[in-house]
Amino acid sequence: MPINNKRTLAKRMETIQPFHVMSLLGKAKALEQQGRDIIHLEVGEPDFNTPQPIIDAGVEALKRGNIHYTPSLGLMSLRQTIADFYQTRYDLDVPASRVVITPGASGALLLIIGALIGSGDSVMLADPGYPCNQNFVRFVDGDIQAVAVDESTSYQLTAELIEQNWQQSTKIVMLASPANPTGTIVPKDEMKKIIQLVKDKQAYLIVDEIYQGLVYDMESSCALSASEGAAADHVIIINSFSKYFQMTGWRLGWCIVPEHLLEACDHLAQNLFLASPTTAQEAAMVAFLPETIEILEHRRQIFKQRRDYLYPQLSALGFKIPIKPQGAFYLYCDCSTFTDDSMTLAHELLETTGVAVTPGIDFGQNHPEHYVRFAYTRDIKYLQQAVQRLQNFLS
Amino acid sequence: MPINNKRTLAKRMETIQPFHVMSLLGKAKALEQQGRDIIHLEVGEPDFNTPQPIIDAGVEALKRGNIHYTPSLGLMSLRQTIADFYQTRYDLDVPASRVVITPGASGALLLIIGALIGSGDSVMLADPGYPCNQNFVRFVDGDIQAVAVDESTSYQLTAELIEQNWQQSTKIVMLASPANPTGTIVPKDEMKKIIQLVKDKQAYLIVDEIYQGLVYDMESSCALSASEGAAADHVIIINSFSKYFQMTGWRLGWCIVPEHLLEACDHLAQNLFLASPTTAQEAAMVAFLPETIEILEHRRQIFKQRRDYLYPQLSALGFKIPIKPQGAFYLYCDCSTFTDDSMTLAHELLETTGVAVTPGIDFGQNHPEHYVRFAYTRDIKYLQQAVQRLQNFLS
Repeated sequence: MPINNKRTLAKRMETIQPFHVMSLLGKAKALEQQGRDIIHLEVGEPDFNTPQPIIDAGVEALKRGNIHYTPSLGLMSLRQTIADFYQTRYDLDVPASRVVITPGASGALLLIIGALIGSGDSVMLADPGYPCNQNFVRFVDGDIQAVAVDESTSYQLTAELIEQNWQQSTKIVMLASPANPTGTIVPKDEMKKIIQLVKDKQAYLIVDEIYQGLVYDMESSCALSASEGAAADHVIIINSFSKYFQMTGWRLGWCIVPEHLLEACDHLAQNLFLASPTTAQEAAMVAFLPETIEILEHRRQIFKQRRDYLYPQLSALGFKIPIKPQGAFYLYCDCSTFTDDSMTLAHELLETTGVAVTPGIDFGQNHPEHYVRFAYTRDIKYLQQAVQRLQNFLS
Repeated sequence: MPINNKRTLAKRMETIQPFHVMSLLGKAKALEQQGRDIIHLEVGEPDFNTPQPIIDAGVEALKRGNIHYTPSLGLMSLRQTIADFYQTRYDLDVPASRVVITPGASGALLLIIGALIGSGDSVMLADPGYPCNQNFVRFVDGDIQAVAVDESTSYQLTAELIEQNWQQSTKIVMLASPANPTGTIVPKDEMKKIIQLVKDKQAYLIVDEIYQGLVYDMESSCALSASEGAAADHVIIINSFSKYFQMTGWRLGWCIVPEHLLEACDHLAQNLFLASPTTAQEAAMVAFLPETIEILEHRRQIFKQRRDYLYPQLSALGFKIPIKPQGAFYLYCDCSTFTDDSMTLAHELLETTGVAVTPGIDFGQNHPEHYVRFAYTRDIKYLQQAVQRLQNFLS
């Protein structure tokens, strides 16, 4: 190859890591081709197909044939539908104009981080956390302040931790509730304190709520419920049709942004992706209808059953999970009973037992060698098989 | 508003301009609501619906219900289909592994510019040109070298112009062929010289071929046909299903990248958008079938008829179009006979005649006040009405 890649690539590429689970996935695929039966507990995607009402609406939209660009910020009818959902479900008065439709939550993060962060700005977030969040910041040459969190704060940032770690450069604090990989939630009281703190600092709080709705022991909530008056000008909500609504492949999400950021979002959307997929937007119009929600709530119960099976089983095997996850579909397990090298363990589990999990390294630098993530995105019968295989391997 | 936007937004937002045509569009919409009949010749989107075979394939894909994430670089079957298309249509041997599926050509530009450009790097491109191209560079804090081009080079960069304007920081040269807004093409001989030059400089050439297929007086072509051997390592092709294939709202494009950039593209795609819309990818599988191409070629003839009508008519009205556009669906017209302020003219045309066009300012800084762009993306009967109205207004 005549081109030296180190010299060729932009500097940011040195810091943007691939998902390490991809190498495991490659190995899993190779094993499957050899006839091995692999149980995929590494996948951060619901196993359910998109609910039928949404598919039907998509089919109708396609058949109408008019699949042209929508406005950059999305179909006003969908923005209004989402605003109505916040009113009905969370008793929140969100004007449709502040709802921005994006190609997945990824598109929302690209807009927000792109509009706010440049060289010299930093974003504070919890470690462990979803790896892409850090990489959006790196993409626009911002800095990361990864704050190590543990079970003492349910693996979440707190107002106290944020205050302790605040720097001159801190412009955004980012939370996820429920969080990936730990499934924990920021309590409303704490959220209030955090919002007040961020407002006092004249900074922004991004709350990733893409697992909103996927909670098992409480009512689902929205961080905006914890903000009052002018404080809402400092809060940005990220959401998605991928997880609770099981529309991953449609690539559709949204964010709720303060009024004063709308113009910047519009300018960036026009340039960076023009608009979100049209048919997905039309199909998503029925995502909040009672017949769809009924399907989704039934599936939420199934996720709950899986969690309630897998959590004690993995604990019994010797994985430590100090905080029972309240949401999402992950168990972030301390595997230090077995190893000081979770990456090697993940490879061994795959090779020996055919169970695929995600190594901690994909979620940050906070002792990742002691953690693996199980996603309960497979039917309970596969979870049972996986537990059986793990038992044989670990005993 | 408690937040000062200038201080709040990232510095790049000062340089990322909205499309000025948006304010015209807003006015057009308001006029339509008052009952005015507006002829939209400002829209860079085919008026045709997506061809029926593609819609049918989309419906079938939706009905199968399995709308999960695809691999980040796209469905291998679609990548192979596109590779086969290059083989069949252009006699080019492009391995499927080098075809990267993206959410629109926008997604492709985000990957390529993101992988290659950082602070201190610059991208050379022609002015006038498509405005987003510059804004992708600004988004990642790179520099623009906009080279003013005129009719003497068919509004395209040449090897000579590139050599004259080369700087230490130049890392990418970007062409569009056919180009927006001028509809001109880079001749194969010139393309060869440019590729050789860029190779000698150890830089990259991006060729935007999103209007490939929409040419009217010649065979469509691909810049890779003009590159040989190692030179291909320096050439990146951007393409899209939006224009020729009339799939704008599906948000699907592709790029062909050198082998050594694939890993960077994969890492960025995983992080920035995860994957392209699944149903669009499945539907696009039939975009190259003979029954689809037959529809598209028929529509190409209709675009040609529109151009062949509008080009002499606008010339007769006093608009100067020194180079007859060979492709795309735009006429970039010198309106200096009428005005030194094309923005005001565009507003007057809209208000007085109801004809909406795009002011030159949306395409760069090269005497934009002397230009407006007409898009022949409306049926010829509307073009005739528009000409009649313009005649009344201008005479």
